[in-house]
Amino acid sequence: MTDSWAAFGADLHIEPVGGGLRSGLMNALREAVRTGRLTPGTRLPSSRTLAADLGVARNTVADAYAELVAEGWLTARQGSGTRVARRADAAGPKPRRTPSRVRPRPAHSLMPGSPDVSAFPRAEWLKASRRALTAAPDLAFGYDDPQGRVELRTVLAGYLARARGVHADPERIVICSGFVHGLTLMGKVLARRGVREAAVESSGLDIHWDLLGKAGLGTPCLPVDGLGARTGELGGMHRVGAALLTPAHQFPTGVPLHPDRRAAAVDWARSSGGLILEDDYDGEFRYDRQPVGALQGLDPERVVYMGTASKSLAPGLRLAWMVLPEHLVAEVCEAKGGPEWMTGTTDQLTLAEFIASGAYDRHVRAMRLRYRRRRDQLVAALAERTPDFRVSGIAAGLHAVLELPEGTETSVVQAATWQGLALERLSRFRHQDAEPGREGLVIGYGTPSESGWAGALDALCRVLP
Amino acid sequence: MTDSWAAFGADLHIEPVGGGLRSGLMNALREAVRTGRLTPGTRLPSSRTLAADLGVARNTVADAYAELVAEGWLTARQGSGTRVARRADAAGPKPRRTPSRVRPRPAHSLMPGSPDVSAFPRAEWLKASRRALTAAPDLAFGYDDPQGRVELRTVLAGYLARARGVHADPERIVICSGFVHGLTLMGKVLARRGVREAAVESSGLDIHWDLLGKAGLGTPCLPVDGLGARTGELGGMHRVGAALLTPAHQFPTGVPLHPDRRAAAVDWARSSGGLILEDDYDGEFRYDRQPVGALQGLDPERVVYMGTASKSLAPGLRLAWMVLPEHLVAEVCEAKGGPEWMTGTTDQLTLAEFIASGAYDRHVRAMRLRYRRRRDQLVAALAERTPDFRVSGIAAGLHAVLELPEGTETSVVQAATWQGLALERLSRFRHQDAEPGREGLVIGYGTPSESGWAGALDALCRVLP
Repeated sequence: MTDSWAAFGADLHIEPVGGGLRSGLMNALREAVRTGRLTPGTRLPSSRTLAADLGVARNTVADAYAELVAEGWLTARQGSGTRVARRADAAGPKPRRTPSRVRPRPAHSLMPGSPDVSAFPRAEWLKASRRALTAAPDLAFGYDDPQGRVELRTVLAGYLARARGVHADPERIVICSGFVHGLTLMGKVLARRGVREAAVESSGLDIHWDLLGKAGLGTPCLPVDGLGARTGELGGMHRVGAALLTPAHQFPTGVPLHPDRRAAAVDWARSSGGLILEDDYDGEFRYDRQPVGALQGLDPERVVYMGTASKSLAPGLRLAWMVLPEHLVAEVCEAKGGPEWMTGTTDQLTLAEFIASGAYDRHVRAMRLRYRRRRDQLVAALAERTPDFRVSGIAAGLHAVLELPEGTETSVVQAATWQGLALERLSRFRHQDAEPGREGLVIGYGTPSESGWAGALDALCRVLP
Repeated sequence: MTDSWAAFGADLHIEPVGGGLRSGLMNALREAVRTGRLTPGTRLPSSRTLAADLGVARNTVADAYAELVAEGWLTARQGSGTRVARRADAAGPKPRRTPSRVRPRPAHSLMPGSPDVSAFPRAEWLKASRRALTAAPDLAFGYDDPQGRVELRTVLAGYLARARGVHADPERIVICSGFVHGLTLMGKVLARRGVREAAVESSGLDIHWDLLGKAGLGTPCLPVDGLGARTGELGGMHRVGAALLTPAHQFPTGVPLHPDRRAAAVDWARSSGGLILEDDYDGEFRYDRQPVGALQGLDPERVVYMGTASKSLAPGLRLAWMVLPEHLVAEVCEAKGGPEWMTGTTDQLTLAEFIASGAYDRHVRAMRLRYRRRRDQLVAALAERTPDFRVSGIAAGLHAVLELPEGTETSVVQAATWQGLALERLSRFRHQDAEPGREGLVIGYGTPSESGWAGALDALCRVLP
């Protein structure tokens, strides 16, 4: 007894934290058991002895022992004193640290899909947050309607009608935790309605196709050409009950959907009873003329409008919204789940105030200028460096496509990696059923910070053939 | 032509919003088409005529027409002028408003499962938010590690070790968007590992059982008695590979899991290779002695600790955390998904600062006093009003159980509804395979605001038999 206690006592550092001497003692004892300093079966000193050693009241030690017995660390049997419990043994050695899952960041990134997050308007956001949280009703902090805060839905309805030509109504808006969350909900609802396939564009994001696939939907592709997706072909795809499109700015080719194609999409939806999912991911950013309005305005009962704060503000907010045909609202809310599946309310309330105060419009305008300047610099640099390579998709959005000579895509991306520049190849976005297409780069000029932009552009120019 | 234009012109109210005259005109035209004021095929006046009528530059009108053609609202054919597109017709009448999905709130609520959200520490939270967002690296606003912000995981590791006896390590913590999100992830991981059944407690929340069921797991129940779940029976449940328990404060009966039962649970997990999911939903709130430490501390490799900010702070934050055995971290992160599935970062950063600054401890302490006072008042009121009915589960948490005479549960809950008091019956939480149990009420005394508490307690006393 004395031996094991001495061994323990020698190492004991009591640093009461939060709960006073007792909890400090408990932590020390737990740690000693955990690390194997105190082995199973070891008898502890009596509470009187330990209290005297530590210069604390006997009750403090007795209480700590009793708690640890209640927690299963120690056992107390009449006549055999207090011992380390048998079951506290096999915890084994302290597990080694899992290496961090975050990959090292490249020196420069021109990966598409992100805005310049260094421009997140922290001060304005905090101001809006203060106003919003101060004014919020108490119940906004509780379990709430998974459809989303009415404050945000109301403000969004006005904003989307004004800025994007969306036929919006707060009752038809559902807030979700990012676009992929919304798309997941739509996949569920479509599958439940018996839809077997959702057409997607032949260039796009495989994570979106995969989400629909996980919901049980096939995802055949519509060819994309210089006028956008060939929506006229929807009529011949007889198993297709929905189409996921990026009408304002095709991702990643950058073309806006031609008016005839817009009309064809809506005609198809009307005549077939199908549904269009309009991914309006960067509709706010158009540089040379006013943004093309949302397709949804043409037929709000056949188009689900899907917008997000990820490109206009920050992906870190995980806030997106859907404007739904009336006949889908209840189903989508049900697919989202009960109150415990709601989207967090603090950022919803803050975004509502941020939009209502005009800060959102100001931010979008400022960012539009910033991105347009970068786009102009990119186009100019490429015209000088690779005058024969075509640059496209530059009228809008946060990325451009640079076509490359056949057989060079891989080597350019590899050269970029060696230079510490993250780049995405065009072929990465090609649907498996698509015709082979041009090689190229999708250059996310929105991604760098202002201070990092020039270096990223230089690095790009260095790695081009 | 002139007729239809006159009809349109008479009603045209241009109120340029945001984008100047052109966008105001576009909005007015879109609305006119949408509402049927301008019918399909109608020829619009020439841009010169309309410009003269409105007193604006001709280009303004020409641009607006061109945009609306691009959007599919209008068509422009050489020789036939600009007309309302055919496809803009069938949008039909403006959809009627869906009635709001939010139910009317009762005058009083003693429903269990919520803290007093009126006590959300708005000012302290905003202070923490300002410090956190100001100090955050830019990349915190971008797509990020779905495991959660390292700032929060680091602070939580320290807090959980100190306050709950959890063996925590930032690398083994995964942040999720509420407990149900975490449980969903665990269900997926267990099912992928080939687990067929997860044992649950015979009293509990059916939404949790359903989540596990949706993942494909059977959910047989462990009987709960006065010492908590009978974990000794796990050994006889041969298809069971996991057990969901509420060791600190059984929900809803309120008993802490007896030390022998804690030991039996860990012994079972070790010998069978099973996993325990420890739902520590209100572990911070214990009134008459120090909280019982987390079961996880006994064997961090066999217990998944699951905590939440929903009871200690606010459900509206949708923030929870899991401390995982090392061998599960990668799988759980994979089940969570890519960066677009991360939990929103602003509240993560704010909570990290809120805990690090000591504000979390202060809030929990203040709330513990508040809830203890309410509990004492509840117990005193019930002792006077229904001295023969047993009240239990009062040592901890935000709710108590009041046993009722057989055959009265339904009538009491109905009487409460008539009085505008929301109450939950005990039988609501019984597993379908559980033995029939006592009738009673689960009284969520944490739910009301301070100003609403006395009235809620009065209403409760009025409806008791």
